[in-house]
Amino acid sequence: MKNQNFTELEQYARKTNRDLARLFSKKQKNFGRDLPLARMTNGIIKAFVLRGGKRIRPFLMYCGYVCAGGKDNSQILRASLSLELLHSFLLIHDDIVDRSDVRRGGPTIHKKIEKKYRGKLSIKEAEELGKSLAIWIGNICFLDFYRLMLESEFSDAQKQKAVSKINKSLESAVYGQLIDILAGAKAMRVTERDIDIIQELKTGKYTIEMPLEAGALLAGGGKRDIKILMSYSRPLGKAFQINDDILGLFGDPKKTGKPNDSDLKLGKKTLLIVKALQRANKSQKKTIIKCLGEKNISKGDVVKVKKIVVQTGSLDYSMKKIASLVERAKETIRKSHFANRGKDLLIKTADFIGKSSH
Amino acid sequence: MKNQNFTELEQYARKTNRDLARLFSKKQKNFGRDLPLARMTNGIIKAFVLRGGKRIRPFLMYCGYVCAGGKDNSQILRASLSLELLHSFLLIHDDIVDRSDVRRGGPTIHKKIEKKYRGKLSIKEAEELGKSLAIWIGNICFLDFYRLMLESEFSDAQKQKAVSKINKSLESAVYGQLIDILAGAKAMRVTERDIDIIQELKTGKYTIEMPLEAGALLAGGGKRDIKILMSYSRPLGKAFQINDDILGLFGDPKKTGKPNDSDLKLGKKTLLIVKALQRANKSQKKTIIKCLGEKNISKGDVVKVKKIVVQTGSLDYSMKKIASLVERAKETIRKSHFANRGKDLLIKTADFIGKSSH
Repeated sequence: MKNQNFTELEQYARKTNRDLARLFSKKQKNFGRDLPLARMTNGIIKAFVLRGGKRIRPFLMYCGYVCAGGKDNSQILRASLSLELLHSFLLIHDDIVDRSDVRRGGPTIHKKIEKKYRGKLSIKEAEELGKSLAIWIGNICFLDFYRLMLESEFSDAQKQKAVSKINKSLESAVYGQLIDILAGAKAMRVTERDIDIIQELKTGKYTIEMPLEAGALLAGGGKRDIKILMSYSRPLGKAFQINDDILGLFGDPKKTGKPNDSDLKLGKKTLLIVKALQRANKSQKKTIIKCLGEKNISKGDVVKVKKIVVQTGSLDYSMKKIASLVERAKETIRKSHFANRGKDLLIKTADFIGKSSH
Repeated sequence: MKNQNFTELEQYARKTNRDLARLFSKKQKNFGRDLPLARMTNGIIKAFVLRGGKRIRPFLMYCGYVCAGGKDNSQILRASLSLELLHSFLLIHDDIVDRSDVRRGGPTIHKKIEKKYRGKLSIKEAEELGKSLAIWIGNICFLDFYRLMLESEFSDAQKQKAVSKINKSLESAVYGQLIDILAGAKAMRVTERDIDIIQELKTGKYTIEMPLEAGALLAGGGKRDIKILMSYSRPLGKAFQINDDILGLFGDPKKTGKPNDSDLKLGKKTLLIVKALQRANKSQKKTIIKCLGEKNISKGDVVKVKKIVVQTGSLDYSMKKIASLVERAKETIRKSHFANRGKDLLIKTADFIGKSSH
C-alpha cells in the first residue's frame, strides 16, 4: 500500500513504533542472564515487529476509541500496540504454512532461524528447526498480545468485552485461514462465494471491523456505536482485501515486501483470477489454469497472467468494486451520530484504503 | 500414570469429560451450514480432547480454589475446563514439532488430517496439509481457552488475575519448549542445570503451580495462599516431570499412549539419562551415546538403554528423588493455614503423583 500522506496515520504509526521499541527493550532487561534463549527470541520478535507495517490496525483501534468518545490517548496507544503482536503471531504462523521466505522486506522468522543454524546442522535439520521454533515464537507473540491488552488501564469489564470481541473475529480469521489452506492445497473446490467468505472472515472482520470495535468497546461504546462501525467495516474490509489481491499480483515486491508470484504459486483463487477466468477466451483460460498453483512458475508466465487480468477487464472490475465499496463506507459515516473528529478520521481512512493500490 | 483410586480426582475427571462433551456439542450446533469446515474442525478437536487425559490440571485448579476458600463448585468446574483446551493447544503444536504420530492412544491431529487427505493428494502434500491445518487447529484451542476463562462468572478482576498468572507460566513453558527443541536438534549443549530449568519451566510451573494458583486467584486468594501453593508446587512439579521421564522410557505405550522410544529418538537428556551417563562404564556410555537422538533406534537398543538405566542405579536414584520431593510438598501443606478439606485434597494429590509410576 502506497502512503497517501495520511498525516494522522503517519503520526500514530511513529508513536506505535517508538512504544513497541521501548516495550521490547524493557522486556529484554527483565530477562535474567540465565535465559539467553529468551533474550534471543525477544530480539528476533523485536526485529520482526519493528521491520515494518503501516500500523493500520492499532490506528483503527484508536479511531474506534475516538468515535465512541474515548479521551485517554496514552492508554489507547498502549492497548493498541497489542494488535501488532497479534498480527505478528498470525503472520509468523501464516508464513510457515505458506512456506514464504520473505516478509516485510526481510526473511520470515522460520527462514531467519533456518539460516542461523545452517552451519551447525544439516540443511533439512535447520529447516525443521526453523519451523519448529517459529511455531513457538508465534505463540509468544500471541501471549504478549493478551498480556498487553490485560495490562492496559481500562476498566476490567471494558477490557474483557474488547478481548472477547477480538477473540471472536480471530476465530473467524482462523476459519478463513483453514479454507485458504485447503483451497491452496487443492484439497477443496473454491467458488466466488467461498472467496467472499474468506475475505469477510480473514481480512474484512480482522483488519477493519475488529480493531474499530475493540477500540469502541475500550471507550465504553454502546450498541449504536458498534452498529455503525460494522456497517462501515464490511464494505471497507472487502475493499482492503481486493486491494491486497491486486498488490499480490501487480505490486512492487520491494515496496510490498512480498513476491508478486506467491499468490499464483499458492493457487489462490482471488477475485482477480475468478473474474479473469469468467471472461477469458479458451487460450487465456488455459494459461491461467496452467499457472495457478504452479510452484515453479516462470517470470514470463507471471507477466502473461497479469496481461490477461488486464485484457479481460478483471483488474478494472476489481478497482471499480473497491471505489464503490469505499463510497458505501463513507456514506455510512457521514450519516452517523459520531462527532466530527471521529467522522473525519474514518472518512480519511476509507479514502486511504481506496487509493492505496493506485 | 496408573490410576491409584484417587476418588476425588476420578469424580472430577468424569464431570470434566461430561461438560467438555456438552461444550463441543453446543459449539457444533452454533455453526451454520455454511461453515462445514468449522464443523469438521470442531469434531476433530472434540475427539482429541475427549480421547483421554486424567484431567489433573482442571482438578488442581479446583484444589487451589477450594484451598483459597472458594465455594462455587459449578463455576470453578466451568472455568477449569479451559485448561484442557489450553493443554490440547500445547500438545497439538508439540506433536507437530516432535513429529509424533501417536497421542493419547490415537493419531496426533496432524497425522489424522494427513490420513484423511492421503487419497486426494500426494503423500508429501497430505503431510504438509496435516501440519498446516494442525497449527491453526491448535490455535483454535488456544482461543477457546481464553474464551472459556473470560466467560466464567467470577469477578472481572479475579478472572484477569488468573489469566495473567496463566499467561506468565505459559510463557515460561514456551521457553522450556524452545530449549527442548534446540537440545533435541543438537543445536545446543544441555547440562543437568538446563534440564532443571526445562523441568521447572515446562512442567513444574505449568502442570502443578499454574492451575493451583489460578484456582486460588479465582477464589480471591491472597499472597499467603499463593506462597504456600508455590512451596507445594515446586517439588511436586519436579516429581511429576521425573515421573514423566520414567514413563517415557519404562511405561507401557498402550497405557501411556506414547511410544517408549520417542524420548530417546529425540535425544532428550532426561535426568534418567544424565544420571546413567555419570555412573556408566565406558561400554555402557558408548551404548547410550549411540542411541541418544538415533531416529532409527531398534527395539533391542531400547531394551539395552533401559537395562543400563537400571544397572547404574539411575532409575532407583530418580524414584528416591520423587519420594523425597513428594514428602517435602506434603510437609508444606501439613504446616499450612488451609482448611482440612483443602489439606486433604493436596496431600492426596501429592501421594497420587508420587505413586503413579510404580
